[in-house]
Amino acid sequence: MKDFITPRSKDFPEWYTDVVLKAELADYSPIKGCMVIRPYGYAIWENMRNLLDGYLKASGHVNAYFPIFIPYSFLQKEAEHVEGFAPEVAVVTHAGGKELEEPLVVRPTSETIMYAMYAKWIRSYRDLPLLINQWANVVRWEMRTRLFLRTTEFLWQEGHTAHATYEEAEEETLRILSIYRRFIEQDLAIPVIAGVKSEAEKFAGALHTYTVEAMMGDRKALQAGTSHNLGQNFSKAFNVRYQDRDGTWKFVWQTSWGVSTRLIGAVIMVHGDDKGLYLPPRIAPYQVVIVPIWKNNEEWQRIEPVLDRVKTGLEKEQIRYHVDLREQLTPGFKFNDWEMRGVPIRMEIGPRDVARHQAVVAVRGEKKDTVGLDRVVEHLGDLIPQVQQKLYDRARAFMEEHTHVVDDFASFKAMIEKEGGFYYAHWCGKAECEREVKEQTKATLRCIPMDDEKEPGRCMVCGEDSPRRVVFARAY
Amino acid sequence: MKDFITPRSKDFPEWYTDVVLKAELADYSPIKGCMVIRPYGYAIWENMRNLLDGYLKASGHVNAYFPIFIPYSFLQKEAEHVEGFAPEVAVVTHAGGKELEEPLVVRPTSETIMYAMYAKWIRSYRDLPLLINQWANVVRWEMRTRLFLRTTEFLWQEGHTAHATYEEAEEETLRILSIYRRFIEQDLAIPVIAGVKSEAEKFAGALHTYTVEAMMGDRKALQAGTSHNLGQNFSKAFNVRYQDRDGTWKFVWQTSWGVSTRLIGAVIMVHGDDKGLYLPPRIAPYQVVIVPIWKNNEEWQRIEPVLDRVKTGLEKEQIRYHVDLREQLTPGFKFNDWEMRGVPIRMEIGPRDVARHQAVVAVRGEKKDTVGLDRVVEHLGDLIPQVQQKLYDRARAFMEEHTHVVDDFASFKAMIEKEGGFYYAHWCGKAECEREVKEQTKATLRCIPMDDEKEPGRCMVCGEDSPRRVVFARAY
Repeated sequence: MKDFITPRSKDFPEWYTDVVLKAELADYSPIKGCMVIRPYGYAIWENMRNLLDGYLKASGHVNAYFPIFIPYSFLQKEAEHVEGFAPEVAVVTHAGGKELEEPLVVRPTSETIMYAMYAKWIRSYRDLPLLINQWANVVRWEMRTRLFLRTTEFLWQEGHTAHATYEEAEEETLRILSIYRRFIEQDLAIPVIAGVKSEAEKFAGALHTYTVEAMMGDRKALQAGTSHNLGQNFSKAFNVRYQDRDGTWKFVWQTSWGVSTRLIGAVIMVHGDDKGLYLPPRIAPYQVVIVPIWKNNEEWQRIEPVLDRVKTGLEKEQIRYHVDLREQLTPGFKFNDWEMRGVPIRMEIGPRDVARHQAVVAVRGEKKDTVGLDRVVEHLGDLIPQVQQKLYDRARAFMEEHTHVVDDFASFKAMIEKEGGFYYAHWCGKAECEREVKEQTKATLRCIPMDDEKEPGRCMVCGEDSPRRVVFARAY
Repeated sequence: MKDFITPRSKDFPEWYTDVVLKAELADYSPIKGCMVIRPYGYAIWENMRNLLDGYLKASGHVNAYFPIFIPYSFLQKEAEHVEGFAPEVAVVTHAGGKELEEPLVVRPTSETIMYAMYAKWIRSYRDLPLLINQWANVVRWEMRTRLFLRTTEFLWQEGHTAHATYEEAEEETLRILSIYRRFIEQDLAIPVIAGVKSEAEKFAGALHTYTVEAMMGDRKALQAGTSHNLGQNFSKAFNVRYQDRDGTWKFVWQTSWGVSTRLIGAVIMVHGDDKGLYLPPRIAPYQVVIVPIWKNNEEWQRIEPVLDRVKTGLEKEQIRYHVDLREQLTPGFKFNDWEMRGVPIRMEIGPRDVARHQAVVAVRGEKKDTVGLDRVVEHLGDLIPQVQQKLYDRARAFMEEHTHVVDDFASFKAMIEKEGGFYYAHWCGKAECEREVKEQTKATLRCIPMDDEKEPGRCMVCGEDSPRRVVFARAY
């Protein structure tokens, strides 16, 4: 491993990989395209998972677990779905020392296996809505992989619901989108633009797909979460029906939605800097790192009781902390090390601080402050939401600064080449124009935004009528 | 699905399957040998996982995630390991539309892939001990499967640690065994016998294996958890070395250990009865079910405010509860339904109860009690540990009742055939005698127990010297 982190401004992709490896978030495995999520990275994922899982449960969803293997024939039942996923599946052909009669696919997503079960479980309108979520590993054979952002195997949650009507399914699709938005904005401190995907970019098998799109530090877009209204495409393919109050049998209306370990990549790319990682307190494994400074046993004796009181206080306030007791390392080394690892708040305490009844507190990368020992725990507690808000505000300002309104294709091409960013531009709705943009600029239609007002105009590619502006960007 | 549960006394295996399906814990999937863990069953697993995960973290372990795929050549590096697992692996031969250069095995356990990474991460004595745990799915191709007990894919945790000395590794192996014991006895209310496995029964690649063995309701044994001292077998195969304080390079000493979704099967088989499931409160998705009884809106109006106060009280006490508001079902049906699903405590409340400022409370399968509304929450809270203890005591008494001391092989054969159970018998230590017992009685050597005093005697098979009694039983 390299001894330093490539500056972010110098080479963003290299900086990214350096941070992931140096901060010990993940590592390359001997299997091409598969990563190992190391304990520090996995602790971030656990914090994310616990928060999102809480929101999903509070909104009536329950967790379950479905098999990792899917018969190849299941994939083929929904025409668009198989077309989308077949090229990237891993296939088990042998097991238990024999060749299998039918090859099994390692799940790239679980629509087909889950809905085969839903067909068995759902009988009556009383069984609806069925609101099931699964936390699982999935496999998609990728040619070009990057730690967290695109890996052959990744971890995610996939929600799969069944409803009596289109309206209820649509409501669920939007409810999830707003849960994702809240989770990503509030907990990950990443502002997003919410919208609908174009036909070309929607999920393979969906009626339509909603998305939340975030801007990374290199001004590229990252799709942070998607929520699909599947209509009756899968219920017809898998014969998922219910008997309604009037006795008639109807196909259910379905949704599916997911976010993945890719979000860890987003956190790194949105908040990180030349020093390394910067973790939003709500998902940081350690919100506070304590670096005691002592030279000998006598000094340690004076620090220890104070440290114990602070630790008790932090535990009471449910603040996640770590005390760095490593020997043979200087305080300065430790400060840099924890800044690189993105711990948002640091507390230092030495014998002189104890004598003065104070501790030194510093928000990552900012100047130090002394705080009286009697209120240091309270102070650390106060800093947590402040840092969280600061990170969000900074990311929001960055996104706004690099979001442009553009009217003609020539300017768009020049600007995106020069400075990246998000572009609100008019689009007629035709796939040809969308393709034209992609071919000429590598930018894709990220979403048709939902929040802003519709303002009609003319497509920047063909000049035909456009009902509203959409968002283009180069993306991960 | 059948409409009734086969009585436990009539056909234990059929009763078991009926309970799993009727209580909606799991279901058969279209993939042979793979089950679907339904929401109610998965909620039990989540409760188990949260408890055990807490104990593991409190004892210094951290979670991580390693790839699901293992190069076939990795399995082969440890001779006993490949012999043990090769026959039951599922193999990916094609991915991304191409044949792979080297086939990948879907992990049956993760020693090999994890230790390949440990070889990269561990450099110095300062990196030790490394205490990593993983919650994951694993696949072992099984010919004869049973829901939860033996399935092709299952969920588990697998801990993998590395230490500087044999002594530290042995200490860790035993520490984990005692964590498992506490978890299974206190949380699952299942008494166990702790001991060492014989050479024939130890983990493929371990120096020795510790186990906790439990007695099921049909008097058969179930291996509930195992903890392996791997010695240096894997560190030598994967070249996992550290530089000691004196500058020399040494191979690390390792352990691995795991428990799985099989424990859900144990809970069913230990505590269940003719009515169905009986869940220990500490892992029950709902510790209390509330069945309101009302005929019309006017009655509902009187019940609702009382219900709201009880709910607030239960939430404050962090008691997991569910209110059964299903219409078109009689209270009697609901009572039976929740007893079948194993909810340990039931509260009923109707308009007459409200008028008398009382509620009706019943522990599953026991007689009802009326409790004043002002102290019903407290009462429910008090019942929870009482029911937990009752289940443990009952299971312990059952295990003791069916544990026998036996001295001659003829009596052993007759008794185990007639009534099953655990048998403390003398064994000389030779594999031939162990095999002889298995061939003649289908009983296996469950463990060489650790807790009781050593009492020398003569092997019940060959008559040679035996240092102590060991435990034989037929097992799952």
